[in-house]
Parts: sequence; structure tokens; C-alpha cells
Amino acid sequence: MNLLILNPNSTASMTDTIAATARRVALPGSRIVAVTGSGTAPASVEGHADAAFAIPAMLAAIRLAEAGGAPPDAIVIACFDDPGLLAAREIACAPVVGIAQAAMQVAMLISARFSIVTTLPRSVPIIEELAHVYGAGNACRRVRSVDIPVLALESAPDAAFARLVAEGRRALAEDGAEAIVLGCAGMAEMCGKLSHALGVPVIDGVVAAVKLAEALAGGGFSTSKAGSLAYPRNKAADAPA
Amino acid sequence: MNLLILNPNSTASMTDTIAATARRVALPGSRIVAVTGSGTAPASVEGHADAAFAIPAMLAAIRLAEAGGAPPDAIVIACFDDPGLLAAREIACAPVVGIAQAAMQVAMLISARFSIVTTLPRSVPIIEELAHVYGAGNACRRVRSVDIPVLALESAPDAAFARLVAEGRRALAEDGAEAIVLGCAGMAEMCGKLSHALGVPVIDGVVAAVKLAEALAGGGFSTSKAGSLAYPRNKAADAPA
Amino acid sequence: MNLLILNPNSTASMTDTIAATARRVALPGSRIVAVTGSGTAPASVEGHADAAFAIPAMLAAIRLAEAGGAPPDAIVIACFDDPGLLAAREIACAPVVGIAQAAMQVAMLISARFSIVTTLPRSVPIIEELAHVYGAGNACRRVRSVDIPVLALESAPDAAFARLVAEGRRALAEDGAEAIVLGCAGMAEMCGKLSHALGVPVIDGVVAAVKLAEALAGGGFSTSKAGSLAYPRNKAADAPA
Amino acid sequence: MNLLILNPNSTASMTDTIAATARRVALPGSRIVAVTGSGTAPASVEGHADAAFAIPAMLAAIRLAEAGGAPPDAIVIACFDDPGLLAAREIACAPVVGIAQAAMQVAMLISARFSIVTTLPRSVPIIEELAHVYGAGNACRRVRSVDIPVLALESAPDAAFARLVAEGRRALAEDGAEAIVLGCAGMAEMCGKLSHALGVPVIDGVVAAVKLAEALAGGGFSTSKAGSLAYPRNKAADAPA
Amino acid sequence: MNLLILNPNSTASMTDTIAATARRVALPGSRIVAVTGSGTAPASVEGHADAAFAIPAMLAAIRLAEAGGAPPDAIVIACFDDPGLLAAREIACAPVVGIAQAAMQVAMLISARFSIVTTLPRSVPIIEELAHVYGAGNACRRVRSVDIPVLALESAPDAAFARLVAEGRRALAEDGAEAIVLGCAGMAEMCGKLSHALGVPVIDGVVAAVKLAEALAGGGFSTSKAGSLAYPRNKAADAPA
Amino acid sequence: MNLLILNPNSTASMTDTIAATARRVALPGSRIVAVTGSGTAPASVEGHADAAFAIPAMLAAIRLAEAGGAPPDAIVIACFDDPGLLAAREIACAPVVGIAQAAMQVAMLISARFSIVTTLPRSVPIIEELAHVYGAGNACRRVRSVDIPVLALESAPDAAFARLVAEGRRALAEDGAEAIVLGCAGMAEMCGKLSHALGVPVIDGVVAAVKLAEALAGGGFSTSKAGSLAYPRNKAADAPA
Repeated sequence: MNLLILNPNSTASMTDTIAATARRVALPGSRIVAVTGSGTAPASVEGHADAAFAIPAMLAAIRLAEAGGAPPDAIVIACFDDPGLLAAREIACAPVVGIAQAAMQVAMLISARFSIVTTLPRSVPIIEELAHVYGAGNACRRVRSVDIPVLALESAPDAAFARLVAEGRRALAEDGAEAIVLGCAGMAEMCGKLSHALGVPVIDGVVAAVKLAEALAGGGFSTSKAGSLAYPRNKAADAPA
Repeated sequence: MNLLILNPNSTASMTDTIAATARRVALPGSRIVAVTGSGTAPASVEGHADAAFAIPAMLAAIRLAEAGGAPPDAIVIACFDDPGLLAAREIACAPVVGIAQAAMQVAMLISARFSIVTTLPRSVPIIEELAHVYGAGNACRRVRSVDIPVLALESAPDAAFARLVAEGRRALAEDGAEAIVLGCAGMAEMCGKLSHALGVPVIDGVVAAVKLAEALAGGGFSTSKAGSLAYPRNKAADAPA
Repeated sequence: MNLLILNPNSTASMTDTIAATARRVALPGSRIVAVTGSGTAPASVEGHADAAFAIPAMLAAIRLAEAGGAPPDAIVIACFDDPGLLAAREIACAPVVGIAQAAMQVAMLISARFSIVTTLPRSVPIIEELAHVYGAGNACRRVRSVDIPVLALESAPDAAFARLVAEGRRALAEDGAEAIVLGCAGMAEMCGKLSHALGVPVIDGVVAAVKLAEALAGGGFSTSKAGSLAYPRNKAADAPA
Repeated sequence: MNLLILNPNSTASMTDTIAATARRVALPGSRIVAVTGSGTAPASVEGHADAAFAIPAMLAAIRLAEAGGAPPDAIVIACFDDPGLLAAREIACAPVVGIAQAAMQVAMLISARFSIVTTLPRSVPIIEELAHVYGAGNACRRVRSVDIPVLALESAPDAAFARLVAEGRRALAEDGAEAIVLGCAGMAEMCGKLSHALGVPVIDGVVAAVKLAEALAGGGFSTSKAGSLAYPRNKAADAPA
Repeated sequence: MNLLILNPNSTASMTDTIAATARRVALPGSRIVAVTGSGTAPASVEGHADAAFAIPAMLAAIRLAEAGGAPPDAIVIACFDDPGLLAAREIACAPVVGIAQAAMQVAMLISARFSIVTTLPRSVPIIEELAHVYGAGNACRRVRSVDIPVLALESAPDAAFARLVAEGRRALAEDGAEAIVLGCAGMAEMCGKLSHALGVPVIDGVVAAVKLAEALAGGGFSTSKAGSLAYPRNKAADAPA
Repeated sequence: MNLLILNPNSTASMTDTIAATARRVALPGSRIVAVTGSGTAPASVEGHADAAFAIPAMLAAIRLAEAGGAPPDAIVIACFDDPGLLAAREIACAPVVGIAQAAMQVAMLISARFSIVTTLPRSVPIIEELAHVYGAGNACRRVRSVDIPVLALESAPDAAFARLVAEGRRALAEDGAEAIVLGCAGMAEMCGKLSHALGVPVIDGVVAAVKLAEALAGGGFSTSKAGSLAYPRNKAADAPA
């Protein structure tokens, strides 16, 4: 099975980390191809405009991969804002999974309620809105942030981890969270250690999305092309003669 | 990977059909054990009381399997009412997936909106409530029924299929459904043919649940035991001395 | 009027307390019959599995009572999880009231917002889900727990009461609660004292349910049998010839 | 028990009908006092402005009754818009029940879903909003109208009844309603006949409210005065010296 | 453009303040007429009953103004409970804007989430319900109060302002509010100073409503008279001959 | 006042139509600058991918305008999907209004419920989701489509208008809509004629957005920069040294 993992931002070291996590949990027969953001993609996605500038190259990468010799059987968007998720489902032939939606679905399968811990406060309303749209509005008790930029997860991992533990503990005590969702693809490597520290399941979206992507492909599920996720229309026919 | 598939009702032929579907889509290394309902379990689950009488034996089957030599890595409840799902998550060590929740999650991954077609009208409000609780209240446009008892899916499959096609067409035309979810485990065999007839993805809960169960187990995800899904309490310690 | 009060758990002393409360508030002409859980019923209902094992005997008790010489005019399920409420409505001829739904309805009639205080933290998400399903999601501001097992309400009543007062005060100060709902049938005896201590209405579900049960029976209201609450189907007719 | 029934509109014949219904279902010891709207009250309440002009006299009637020698133990507002319900709860000592809220609560106790049939189309969004606010948004499937003015229920009862039957049948067939709620106090007399014609429970708000009012009073439940329903404030103390 | 500003309460000094604010932000060509509450109108609106007694005179003032020589092009109700808003839309020819709805709409245009700070705690649930009904349930994170009566905003402005600052800071820190809405018409004069103190936009409902009223009138938008906001019906035709 | 109107698609004739509408309703002192989509912008926005490819050039146009000599006082995005609305609010200094949000807000100010009529069926779920996110989920009864591509509004206006009338009539009859919202910027010219044909208010988003944009600017309201809509972060400081 070919899995295409898209890191929408332009930081290649983060793509490497994501790909390593994906390979660690993928099925034996799954081949992982990870692509880093290019063109106008920012170094990290921290808000709506960052996402907007990252999406076109990401969509182009999907088209390139699907036109190639080993088209993906499933595609993962590895950024917790799920940037361009619906646009990707439109243009792709293969099913597309976003790490936020995947992580929230897994959280709803293994807990009655969970909290999400993300990087910057400015991402909190964005993720709350995703939870609302994905139907996790009740199950997700709170979206919290450690107030650390995405790139600092790499540059200052120890400080980031300490804050993750602290915020996770607050989620357990104040929110009644039964599980924690990591709100950034860059947190993947801290997942196991954090679960050990907190004593509850900690869900990394990259892992969740890779497994759901394999599940969709393995189950023969593909995006409906009979509605709002149909391939983009060719406008040439619409213009007046 | 060991998968335990629970058919809550007492109809062994339906267990066989479910197991065959599960085996067809399971990973090469997955071993499927399917258990038929016993004790007070009814021949089909068509309402709240039927479910209530089916659950205790189903929970006992989980305990038995988990105490055995080849404990399950994941468990599937193969009835579209998801009877006893949260109770099963409490008592089981392995993660538990219900076919209704699984099918709705898959539907939300591959379409913007979907409708569900179930057997009897009396099951419609039950499934609507599940959609509400699972966060699919917006994405699920309508729960429809073909007004055929569960067991008639086996005894009169041609009539049942004709009605499924008719109701599915109404879902596309009237609900704007982009995908159809089959609202009964007994419909699994009609899935491919129905998708062909309707021209949209048709999601069978058994397939969805088996793939999600494998995904959870493969990703190392297990039910949180730190909250409402902890193992049932031993009451002995609570009584006055 | 004959009222059947079902204590789903197997603790007879709790049944006695519930029955005493019911008799205290019932109409002069109401006759109370209280039944204790039997068979696989646990000593207390603290979670989904406890409820699942309590329901079958409870349903059997309803059938027995309705087949007897003085069938109930209304039925009360006296456990705050409202276990088996919809199944009971299916099998019973008489209307059925659960103490959680009754208490929340009364709370919505006498306050703009209320909080619920229950026993164990693990019951909190269960009751939150009930509030959501019963349409009290907005009016119910928070479900709180005193972190005391159900049976300890009897064995250590003074400690339990002290914690109820403390948690109730937090509900007034932090949630803006205008009334408090007791989240366990075993708290009935503390109701008056707690209302006195807090200075706001405190609603005991047993009282609420007994009065609503009398109201339904007195008003001639009975469960609709034209839909999802119809009597369970006889499956014999469904099987192939 | 003293029950005060308020007909907000100025049509005395409607008050008589409401009072007769109330007396028919009240407990043996309940004394019914019914008051007709006065002052600026319109002949019928068909919209927001009608309600606004009916409320002040209704509130004055409550104050008068509570200052009298036989103060009410509970109060019923007998108009399906529940006009002034929260204002009445503020100024009254006794608990106050509106017939719309009462009917919807009863409907949620005896069915999984119901539809409401009211008089004029213009009342439909008003009642939909009440259902939303009362937490019946899911259970109430649709608010329908027979397109007949309130007063025509009295002047042309046969035509009105025929339309009620027709609209009720549509509710059963199209909405999957398991019960019907009458959306106007003036429909009370048609309740039994309509239930017979439709074969499902039909809930009259006057009956529902009288029984809930007795239930509240009998259970010792009174409006919380610790919050938004406290007695109106005396402003004299607020002004600058 | 003629704008009619209605202060529902009877405190003329508050009307003056409101009118001054309105004139400060109105378009050059807008003429502001401000009317103080009369008849049974209370000195301030602090609850449902206060509102009920203020509405009839307010509706009469609209009718008077619309019958006059310079009928209003748009109408503003300048009390944060939006008392009688829908009744006013029914009886008025011109569009009607309430300051609460206006302020919440503006808040949703310039921030992802906001909190409201009102006067008394008893108004909190009233405003929460408005937010719910206006569709701001998600965007409005919390309704807070400074626990000061409406009239004290005039009599003790410094103390009131200090508490507004304190509560606004809590809203930023605890609610993640990105903007603050002033929850009382009497706070208009503190708006600029508060925004300066808090460093975020502070939205005064009077300003918001005046600008939206001008926008509606300028865009040619008027209340739909084809439904629930049609002019009140004349009942004379309904009575039996 | 300077207003920047952004047509995200690349069809200049549509920009001209939008600008003409804007100029017709703008305040005397308002100067309208309208910009057509460029770069990867498609000829029309009919789905998520079209939007994604239109957004970057639109954001660049905002930056260019704000850096120029006559920076805009308010900005309008003139496409009913409100593409890039939140990203635009992040990068812009001036407030930004989307025509869908503006139209829905106006609809909620002048009617109790409305329906939206858009071009293609594939846009229906997109607009439904916007209604949900903007808090118009209750007030918006249904999103309908005329099944005509965006560009055909220009090339075949008579056919388009006939279908708009037909679909609008269905909205009145079936949805109980009291007003109609035009679900495409390209429909602006048909607004008056359609309102005349249907007899209810018809709301064009371009008009609504221009008037709300002027209202925001005139009221001194600007986007909060203290949260999720702050200017995009400069990532340079985040990288490790």
C-alpha cells in the first residue's frame, strides 16, 4: 500500500520526524512517501493565512503523486489544522485523512471525553472550530495550548515537553479528560513519554491518520465523487459561446 | 492480530455472514473469532428491549475471550444499534468498536453528508440518537428504513435489496446524500451490489468496524481506563463494616 | 393509583429508603410497591456495565407486575443513570419515568440553570450525556461529583453530606446554578437538609419522578406504542418458512 | 390545592373551555380559578406583539391572586406561546407552568419524537424557538399549522377538527411522529377525539400543565429565587443620593 | 435618514447618554430621535418582569413615530435584553435592531470569540439565552457580570469602570476572549476607555446598533412581512358571526 | 471611505457587475476599488479546491492595497463561499466582511427564518457548513441550488432567473422561508426583480457586505489582533540558533 504523507509546511526536518513516526506504525506492506511544503508554504502553520499559503503546493503535490507511476492508495495531511482537507478530497482520487479529524475520531473511540493540547494560543479557536465541525464538540472538553511556537518543539524539546506534561495534568484535573490529543504534528515524538507521564492514552494525529488511512484503503473506501467532493469542474464549458 | 466479533443476536446464520464479511476484508494476519448471542439474546435486535436482553451474554463472551489463551486485540460489536458499546469498553481490556459508530466515522471521512438506511421504522429514532451522540448529527442527513424485519434480509433477500435500492435513490435525490450507510449488520452482503446500483459509496458497518478495530490495535490505541470507561468497581469495599 | 418503583441495584436497604421517600410525597390514594434488583444486578450502579447487568431483572419485574392483579398505573426507575428507561417504556403498558429525566425536567421548570451533584467521577460523563439527550444541555451547567461510592452514602452519611454541601456551594459560586439536582437515588434523605444549607431548591429525582409519574397517570398520558417504543416484536413470524 | 389558570387573551369563552378542561383532570382537592386577560390583552395571541400586550395584565393578575386570601399553590399560563412565562416566575411566589413547556415535557416522557400542530403559520417559528429553548429541539420533529385563526377554533370547530386530523396524519407519515402535541389552548376539547382518529397519544397543553403544576406543588418544588428568577428589584436604592 | 432610538426604561438621563453616543457615530445625514420609556416602564430593565412592563409603551412609541410626519427609516432598541425586539419587528414598518443582537453580530465580524460583561448576575442567563438564540452560542465564550445595578453605572461610574476593567481582564485570561461586548446600554460612555485599558476591541451595543440600523436602511433592507413578523392580525374577522 | 472589493475569481466581467452593485448602494463618500482574482485563481469558485487556488492572490491583493497610498477602510470578499475570510482578517489591518456572513446576518435581522438559493448542488454543503459556523444553523432553513454553473448566470441570465424564481417559490412553500438569500455574487443583478416576483425580501450578499463594511468602518470597529486573528507570525525567531 502506498501512503502519501503531506507536511504542508516547508520545514524538512519536521517532515522527517513525521515520516519516521508514520513508518514506525505503518503496516509491513505500506510504503511511506513524505512531501515537504514548497512554493509559498511557510516554515510552520500557525493560523489561517499560513494555511492558505501552504495549501496550493500541497494540492499540486497530490496531483503530481496521483499522476505518477505509484499513485497513493491513501493520503495523509500532517498538520493539525487539517489545512486544505476538503480541497484535497476533491482533487484526489485516493481517500484523504487529516491528522486532526483522525485523532479526534480515535479519541471518541477510546474515551468518553478528551482534551487537546496544541502549541500557540492563536491555534485554539481554529481547533475548537474543527472539533465543532467534526462532531467532537461534546466529546472534546477543551483545547489548550502550551504557548510555544511550532518550530520550538524541535529547537527546545525539553521545555516543550515539560509544558505538555503540565498542561496535560491540568486537562485531567480540570476538564475530566480521559485521554489527551496532541494538537500538532510536531509533537509526535513526545507521545509515548507523555502517555507514561500522565497515565492516560495520548493520541498522536500522525499515528491516528496513518492507521485510518490504511483502514480506508484496506476497506475499499474512497471519497464520494457524487456531490461536494467531486473533482473540480472544468469551467471552459460554462462560458458564453 | 486476534479480532473478536460479537453478533449480539442469537441467529447463527447471521453470525456466519458477518464473519465471512470480516474475513474477506481483514488483514492477512488477522484471525476472526465470531460469537453468536446466547442466553436471553433475541433472534434479532429490533429495539431497546431486544438490545437489553442481548447485552449480558455479549459482555460475558468478552470476559470469556479475554480470559482465554488468545485474548482479542480488538473487539467489534456487529449490530447497528451498537448495543452495550460503552459497557463493553468498560469491561474489556482491548479496544471495542461498534459498527454504527465505525460506519458513521468512515462516512464522515469520505463524504460531506450521508444518509443511513436501516430495516424497521422503529429503529430510526434509535439510530438518529446514536448519530447525535457520535457527533454525526450534521453530516447524517436522514435515517431511513426499508420497513423489513432484520431476519427477512436473509429470508427474502431479493425483496429487501429492491427496497434498499429504492430507498437509497430517495436518499440521493431528497437528502443530497453523497454516501449511504447500511443500517444493519445483516445487510453486509448487499453492499457492493448496492454501491454499483446507486453510483455512490455504500458503507457497511462490519467492514468499517473491522478496519477501524485493526487500526486501533495496530496503532497501539486502547480504551482509557482513567474515567468513565474504567473497569467496573468491586462493591465489596464500599459496604459498611 | 398503583406506582411501581424499581431500584435496579440489589441493595434492599436502598430500596427501603427510596420507598420511604416515595410514600412521603405520594398522593393519598397512591400505593407504592418497590422492587429491589435481582439476578445479575450489582449492589450499586456505577457505570455502564453495572447498568447492563441490572436491566434484565428490572424489565422482568415490570412484566411480572403488569401481569399481576394490581398492575401499576405508572412506573419509576429509581437510579440516576435511568438504566433501561427506553427498554422499559417498550415493554410496559404503563408510563415509565426515570429519576434523572424527571429531576432535570423539574429543574427546568423552577430555575434557569442548575447543576447536578453525583457520587463518583466516573458517572459524570454518563449523566452529562443524559442531560444532552434529554434536552437539558443548556440549562444544566455542570455535572459534579463528591467522589464517594453509592453505598458510602449509607455507610458514611455525615462525610457524604459534608461533601455535598461543599460541592453544592461550588456549583452556586462557579456555575451560577440556581438549583441543585441530586445525582443519585441514594441521596434522597439529604435533600431537605441540603436545600436548607445552600439556600436554593434541591431536587431529588425520586420525589420528582413520583410526582411526574402520578401526573402522567392522572392526566391519562401513556407511552406511545406507534413507533420506537412499541412492544418488542415477536420474531417467529420473520424467519423463512 | 389552589391552581390559578391564566388565559392571557381577552376571550372569556376560551377561559371557560380551558377551566372546564382543567377541572376535568385536576385532583379531587384542587380548586381551579381561571382568569381572562384584560387591559390591553388582545382577543387571541397570534404573534409577539399580541403576547406583549397580554403580559402586563397577566402579571398583575398573579400579584392580585398572591396577595389575596387563598393564594395559588401553582400557576398555569394557558397559551401555547408561553407568554411572559419567565416574568411570571420572577414575580410569583408559587411555581409557574406554561402549557407549551408542559406539553413538550410530557411528549418527551411518552414518545421518542413528536410533532406539534398549531393554528396559524405565523406561530410556527415562535413555537420552534420555544422547542429549541426548552431542549426539545431534537425530540420535536416539526411544528405544523392548520392555517386557522385561534378564534375560529370556536366559531368553526368542525372545519378546524378536519384540518387537525389531516395535519396530524401528515405528521405521522412524514415526520415519524409518535405523538402529537396540540399547539393552542383552544384545541383542548378536540384532544380525545383526535387521539382516537390518529391512533397515537395527543397531548393537550392545558392537561399537561395542570398535572405538572399539581406535581410541582405536591412535591414541594418552588421557583428558585437565587438568580435570574428572583423577585424584581426595587430600583429606589440604586439612584444617586 | 431618521433613526428612532428607544430606551425602554424610564430614566431620561440614560436616554440622553444613549442619544449622545448615537449622534456621535451616526452618519452626517442621520437625525436621531430618542424616546424614554413611559407608562409602566421601570427605571431600569433588570430581568424579565422589568422588560415585560417596559415593552407596551415602547411599542406604542413606535406606532406613534411611524404615524408621524417624519417616520423613522430604522429603529434601535437600546437595552441589552433586546426587550420586545420581535414584537417591534411585527408592528414596525421600518427595520428594527436590538443592541444585543447588533453587538454580537459585530463581535462575530471582528473576532473569533468574545465575552460579554453585563451589570447584575441575574441578567447573565437572559443574555446567554439571547446569544444562543442569535447563533452566537459558540463565539460568545462567557457572559460575565460586574454585580452593579444599571443605575449605579451613572451614580458610581468610577467604581463601575474599575470592575469592568477587572472583569474584562478575567475574560481575556480565562475565556480567551479576543473582544469584549458591553452588556448594558448604560455602559456606552466607558467603551473607549475600556478598550484602551484592555488592549482589545470593546463593542458598545448602541454604536453597533446605530451603524447596523443605518446599514439596513441604506441597503434597502426591511423586515419581511411574509411570516411570523407580519403586522399583528385584526381579530374582528375571526369571531363567529 | 475607501472600500476594497475582492472578486476571488478571474472573471473580470463579474468583477464589473459586483462593483456596479457596490457603487449603487455605497454611501456618497465611499470609493469602491474592485480587484479581480489573478495567478492561480479559477474563472469561478465552485468548490473547495477552486477556493484554495483563489485565496493566495486575494491575500496578496489585500497586502498591496494596504501598503498603497489610499489604504482601504474596509474590505469585502465577494464570493458566497467566503473564501479565505479568516486569513484575510489575519493579514488585513482593515475589517473584512464576507458576503455570505453579511447576507446571513442581515437575514437574521429582518426575518425569523430564511433559505439560501445558490448555483450548483456541490456548493450546498459548503454553504450549509458556513451557516452552521456563523450561527445561522437554526434561522437558515435550507440551502437550495438552481443547478446552474456560476458563469452561466452571465451567459444565460433568463434561464437562470426562471430557475431562481421557481426555487424561491419552493423555499417559501416548503421551508416556510420569510426571506431569500442569494447564494452567489453573480446573482446581484437579479435581486430586485426576484424580490418583486416572490413578494418577500431577497438579500444580495454584495449589498449586505458593502453596507456592513461601511458600518464597521463608520463605527470604528476593527479586527481584534489579540488572538487567532493576529497578524501572521514571523517564523525567523522560532528556529534554533
